[in-house]
Amino acid sequence: MSAVDKQLEQIRDEIEQEVPPDIHVSDVKYEGPEVVVYTQHPKEFAQDGDLVRRLASKLRKRITVRPDPNVLTPPEEAEAAIQNVIPDDAGVTDLDFHADTGEVVIEAEKPGMVIGRHGSTLREITQEVGWTPEVVRTPPIESATVSNVRNFLKQEREERRDILERVGRQIHREEMADEQWVRISTLGCCREVGRAAFILSTAETRILIDCGDKPGAEGEVPYLQVPEALGAGATNIDAVVLTHAHLDHSALIPLLFKYGYDGPIYCTEPTRDLMGLLQLDYLDVATKEGRTPPYQSEMVREAIKHTIPLEYGDVTDIAPDVKLTLHNAGHILGSAVSHFHIGDGLYNVAFSGDIHYDDTRLFNGAVNDFPRVETLVLESTYGGRNDYQTDQEDSERKLIDVINRTTDEGGKVLIPAFAVGRSQEIMLVLEKAMRNGEIEEMPVHLDGMIWEATAIHTTYPEYLRDDLQNRIFHDDENPFLAEEFNHIDGGEDERQEVADGGPCIILSTSGMVTGGPIMSWLRHVGTDPESRLVFVGYQAQGTLGRRIQNGWDEIPINDRGNHGRAETLQLEMDVETVDGFSGHADRQGLENFVRTMNPRPEKVLCVHGDERSVQDLSSALYHEYNMRTFAPKNLETFRFK
Amino acid sequence: MSAVDKQLEQIRDEIEQEVPPDIHVSDVKYEGPEVVVYTQHPKEFAQDGDLVRRLASKLRKRITVRPDPNVLTPPEEAEAAIQNVIPDDAGVTDLDFHADTGEVVIEAEKPGMVIGRHGSTLREITQEVGWTPEVVRTPPIESATVSNVRNFLKQEREERRDILERVGRQIHREEMADEQWVRISTLGCCREVGRAAFILSTAETRILIDCGDKPGAEGEVPYLQVPEALGAGATNIDAVVLTHAHLDHSALIPLLFKYGYDGPIYCTEPTRDLMGLLQLDYLDVATKEGRTPPYQSEMVREAIKHTIPLEYGDVTDIAPDVKLTLHNAGHILGSAVSHFHIGDGLYNVAFSGDIHYDDTRLFNGAVNDFPRVETLVLESTYGGRNDYQTDQEDSERKLIDVINRTTDEGGKVLIPAFAVGRSQEIMLVLEKAMRNGEIEEMPVHLDGMIWEATAIHTTYPEYLRDDLQNRIFHDDENPFLAEEFNHIDGGEDERQEVADGGPCIILSTSGMVTGGPIMSWLRHVGTDPESRLVFVGYQAQGTLGRRIQNGWDEIPINDRGNHGRAETLQLEMDVETVDGFSGHADRQGLENFVRTMNPRPEKVLCVHGDERSVQDLSSALYHEYNMRTFAPKNLETFRFK
Ligand SMILES: [Zn+2]
Ligand SMILES: [Zn+2]
Ligand SMILES: [Zn+2]
Ligand SMILES: [Zn+2]
Ligand SMILES: [Zn+2]
Repeated sequence: MSAVDKQLEQIRDEIEQEVPPDIHVSDVKYEGPEVVVYTQHPKEFAQDGDLVRRLASKLRKRITVRPDPNVLTPPEEAEAAIQNVIPDDAGVTDLDFHADTGEVVIEAEKPGMVIGRHGSTLREITQEVGWTPEVVRTPPIESATVSNVRNFLKQEREERRDILERVGRQIHREEMADEQWVRISTLGCCREVGRAAFILSTAETRILIDCGDKPGAEGEVPYLQVPEALGAGATNIDAVVLTHAHLDHSALIPLLFKYGYDGPIYCTEPTRDLMGLLQLDYLDVATKEGRTPPYQSEMVREAIKHTIPLEYGDVTDIAPDVKLTLHNAGHILGSAVSHFHIGDGLYNVAFSGDIHYDDTRLFNGAVNDFPRVETLVLESTYGGRNDYQTDQEDSERKLIDVINRTTDEGGKVLIPAFAVGRSQEIMLVLEKAMRNGEIEEMPVHLDGMIWEATAIHTTYPEYLRDDLQNRIFHDDENPFLAEEFNHIDGGEDERQEVADGGPCIILSTSGMVTGGPIMSWLRHVGTDPESRLVFVGYQAQGTLGRRIQNGWDEIPINDRGNHGRAETLQLEMDVETVDGFSGHADRQGLENFVRTMNPRPEKVLCVHGDERSVQDLSSALYHEYNMRTFAPKNLETFRFK
Repeated sequence: MSAVDKQLEQIRDEIEQEVPPDIHVSDVKYEGPEVVVYTQHPKEFAQDGDLVRRLASKLRKRITVRPDPNVLTPPEEAEAAIQNVIPDDAGVTDLDFHADTGEVVIEAEKPGMVIGRHGSTLREITQEVGWTPEVVRTPPIESATVSNVRNFLKQEREERRDILERVGRQIHREEMADEQWVRISTLGCCREVGRAAFILSTAETRILIDCGDKPGAEGEVPYLQVPEALGAGATNIDAVVLTHAHLDHSALIPLLFKYGYDGPIYCTEPTRDLMGLLQLDYLDVATKEGRTPPYQSEMVREAIKHTIPLEYGDVTDIAPDVKLTLHNAGHILGSAVSHFHIGDGLYNVAFSGDIHYDDTRLFNGAVNDFPRVETLVLESTYGGRNDYQTDQEDSERKLIDVINRTTDEGGKVLIPAFAVGRSQEIMLVLEKAMRNGEIEEMPVHLDGMIWEATAIHTTYPEYLRDDLQNRIFHDDENPFLAEEFNHIDGGEDERQEVADGGPCIILSTSGMVTGGPIMSWLRHVGTDPESRLVFVGYQAQGTLGRRIQNGWDEIPINDRGNHGRAETLQLEMDVETVDGFSGHADRQGLENFVRTMNPRPEKVLCVHGDERSVQDLSSALYHEYNMRTFAPKNLETFRFK
C-alpha cells in the first residue's frame, strides 16, 4: 500500500471515530486539496450542521461530503424537492445533476438564498434528497466567458476528476527531502515591468508563481528554460499560482501545458474566467498582427481544466510542505496577494502580485495582515521617488468637469480604457455622477471587451468592494445594470449611429490606443473639434496613446479595407489626461502597505518595476523601516532558510 | 553534414591554405579541446618549426600534428633512431609506440633534454621517424600512483580517444542560445569550509567547479540534486573543473560518474594524480570506519579516464562560449586559480580555489594577474579580522629550535602532518636546516601517504617554486632525495626499531590525529617524556589533535587487535605548536591578493570560510577597496550579465 493510501486509511479511521455510528463511510478520496468523504448516509451527515466543520478542524483539511450513488433520490424527484426547499426569490436558472459524484450544481441569481444562513438551506437540500449541492451565480449580465467556462468544465468533468485525484495524491504524498530550505528564483519582471514569473522552491517542492508576457517586447518571455524552472522537465513543477489575470502575469500559462506541465493552477474563480478571456484575446491579437501565437486555444482550455479555484482566506495544502492562502489585492477582479506557509512553521513568504493599497470604488484595498510573514515580494510599478498619484476624489472631480465641459459644447467624450478593472471603475464613477446629477444622464457606450469583462465582474460580486456588494446583494441596485450603459454590439453601423447622435461617453479598448475599436472611434469622432479624447490610464512609451498625449495630431490609421495602406487622420478633438485611476498603489500606497503590514516582514524583494523604481523603493524601505531589501535581477536565486 | 563537421571542413581548408603544397593533410579531428591534424608528411610538417604555432594562432585553437599510420617508420627501427637523437643524459626509461595515433610516449628522467630548446629535439625526432613524440617524466622517486595512472590510461587508450572526440565535438558544437547571461550558483562551501561546489552557467553552458566533501560532517555533501546542478540530469553539465586535489574540493567527483556524468574533468596533471590517490584513500578510510563509501574505486578510474590535464597558462576552449585558463594558486601541488573567459568578451570570472599569496619553500605565490576579470570567487578560510599567521621565517626558526631542544635531550620529534603539501614544506625546511647545520643530521621518517605524495611532487617539478625547480633541474640536487628521508614501509617492526633508536624526526599522517599511523606512533613514543609532539597544521574542532593541543593527556587508542576495546594512553611527551606553515593565505595574504590583483575585480564573492570569516572579509574588502562584495549562502544564484 502506498504512503498516500495509508494516509487515506488513517483519515478514514479518524472520520469514523468522529461520526455517529449510524453513518457509514463508504470511501475517502483526495480531490485536489480536499478530502472527499463518500457516505451511504448523506442525509444523516447533513443533520449535524457542525460535523463537517469539526472533521475539518480535526484533520486540518478541507472536507467535502458526497453521497454514495446508490442512495440518491432520482434526479426528477430530487429536482422538485430542491425547488421546494429553495425560496422562489433565489431565482434558480439551472439544476444540473451529476450522478457519478452525487453533486447537483444549482445556478441561481441569488446564490446567498440557496445557501441560507450558515449553509442551512444547503443542508436542508441534502437532508431531503441526498445530493450534495454546489451553487454558482447566474451572471446578471450574460457572459459568454462564464458560460463557456462552465459548459466546458461540465463536459470535461470526468477528466477533471482524474486530474483532481492525481493532484490530491501528489499534494498528500510522503515528504522525501531530508533537508529544509526555502528559495525564490526570479524568472522575469525584475528591474522591468512584464513577464512576471517566480519559482518558490523547497527541498521537496517547486511552485511557479505567475507566468506572463512582456507587452510590447516580443520574445522577452520569462526564463522558463533554465533548470530551476522547466529545464529539468515541466513535471518537476508541483503547482502554479496565478496572482491575477493580467497578461503580464498570465499570458504564458497555457504554454506550460504545451511544455508538458500537467499539474494544478491555483487562483480565484474570477481570475480563472478573466484569464481565459484575456488569453484568447491575446491569441486573437497575435494572429491579427501576423505573429505566430506561442500556443493554441486548446492550451487555454487545458489551463482552465487544471485550475483549482480558491476563495480569499482559504488555507489550502498545495504540496506536502506548502499551504497557500489568497488575499484580496485590490488591483483587479480576483487579484490576490499570495501567502505561502512553508514547512511546519519553517518560513512564510507573501507575493503581492499587483496591488492597490487604498480602497477604490470597485475594490477594497489590499490585505496586508497575515499570521506570519518573513519575506515579501513586492510589486514596485510606482515605486519611484516621484511616483505619487492624484487622489481619487480629485481625479473624479476632474473627470466630471471635463465631461461637463465637453457635453455642454455638444461634444462626445472618448475614453480609451483597459477592459478589465479600469473600465468598471470609470463606469462606477459615471453611474454615481449621473445618479447625483453631477453630470447629465446620457448614454455610456462600451466597446471592445469591456462589456464582457463587466459581465464577469457582476458574476462575482463577492470580490467587489464591501458597499458595492451590499448594493448588489441587498438593495437590488446593481450599478453595472444602469440603463445608460450600452453594449456596442452592432459593429461599424452602431458606431456610425452613435457618432451621428448627441452627447455621450464612449469607453473603448485598447487602453493605450494600440489597436482595437478605439481606432475606429478615432475615425468617427477624431475630427470633431467639439469632442474630447480623455486618457484615464497609464500610456506606455512607444504607444500611440503616449504620442497623442505628447501632442501628435497626425494619426496613422491602418485601414485594412484600404489594402493595408496607411491612412492619416488629422486629429481635431481636444486631448486631456485625468490621472489617479490606476489599479496600482502609488509610491505612498506601496510604503503604506509595508508600513502597516502585520507582521512587518524581515526582507522585501522589490520587483515589477523599472530599474529606477525598484532601486528607489528598495532603498527607501531599507532606510525608513530598516528591513533587508533587495532589487533582484532576473535569473537570480535567493535563499531564505 | 553536422555543424561540427562543417566547422572541421573549414578548419581543414584553412590549414591547407597555410601549409606548403607538398604537405598533404589526410584528416582533421577534434580531440578534447585540441585540433588534431593527421598528415602523410609528418616529417615535412616538422621541418618548419614555426608552422604549428602559426596554425594555432590563425585558428585560435590548440593544434597537434600526427602522422598517418601508413607513413610510420616501424617501431623497432624508430626506437633506435629516437635513442640516437636524444642525448644519453636525458635518461630515457621507456618508449611506448601507439600505431593507431602515431604517437610515441617517451618516459625520461630529464624530459627537458628530450624536448630540446623550443622543442627542437622533438621536431628532430619527428623528422627522423614520423612519429609524434610525447614526453613524460620518470618519477625520481617511484610512485605507485603515477605508474598506476599511466598504465591505466595506456590500457584505456581507445575508450579515451572516443571520449576525447566526443568532448571535442561537444566543445565545438554550434551555439544554440540566443540570450546572453552569466550566473554562479552556490552548491556548497558558503559560510562553511568543506563541500566546495559551484555551477558557472551561461544560456549555453553549465560548468561544475569542484565537488568536495565536508570532512567531519558526514552527509553534508554539496547540493548536487537541485535542478541547477544535476537535478536536470548529469548530462546537462558540460564540464567539471577541479581547482585542486584536496578532498573538500575533489572527494565527490567520482560520484558524478555514478550519476551519469560522462564529460571531461579539467585540472592540472598533478591534481589528477593526487586526486586519484586521495579519493582511493577516502574510500579506504570510509570502509575502515564502517561507513558505506558513496562510490566504488571503479568510479575513481572513470574520473581519471575523463580527465583532460591542462598546464598553467594554457587558454583552452571548454565550451562554445567558455575559455578556461588555470594559474598557479600556491596552495598545494597543481592547485589552480581557475579563470573563465565567457562569450566573446562578455564576462570574466576567476575562482581562487584555495590559495597561498606569498611564496613558500614549495610553491610560488598565487597568480593574480589576468587579462580581464570582473568577478572573483575568493576562498576566505583565514578571512576573519584576527586571522593573522606567524610569518614563515619565524615559524621555521621556532621549528628548528623545538627540534634542537628535543634532540639535545635525546628525544624524538613527532609531527602529525597532512600527506599532501604541508609534509613536503616541512621536509624542505628540515633538509635546508640540516644542510646549513642549524639542526644535526638525523633520520626523518615519513609514514602514511607522505612518501607517495612526495613521489608525486618529484614527478612534476614544473609545478614547484622557481628556485626549487632550478635545484632539481640544473644542480641535480633534488632535496626530496636527501638521504635523511626514510620511507617507513616496514610496518610496526620498523616503527618499533625507530622508537628504540636514537634522536630522529617523524612525520606521519593523519594531520589532525584522527587515525592512521600517527596513532601507532603515539603508542610507540607517546609515553617518552623526552620526546615531543609538534603540531604544524590547523587542528579542527572535535579532532583528537585539537584536544591534545588543549591539554588532554589521556588518549583513547582504539586497538583493533584488542577486540576493538578502547585502550587509554597516558601522554607523557611534551606538546608544542608551531604555526605559520598553513597552505592558506592568512587575512593579510587574502587582502594582498585582492589589493594587488590586476585588474581589480568589480565583485568578490567570499566563500570557503566560516560565517564570521566570510562576513569579515566581505565587509573589509567592501570598505577598503570599494568593491561590491558578497558572502553568499549555499543554494543561491548570482547573475552578473
Ligand atoms: Zn496587473
Ligand atoms: Zn502586472
Ligand atoms: Zn560564503
Ligand atoms: Zn585545499
Ligand atoms: Zn579547501
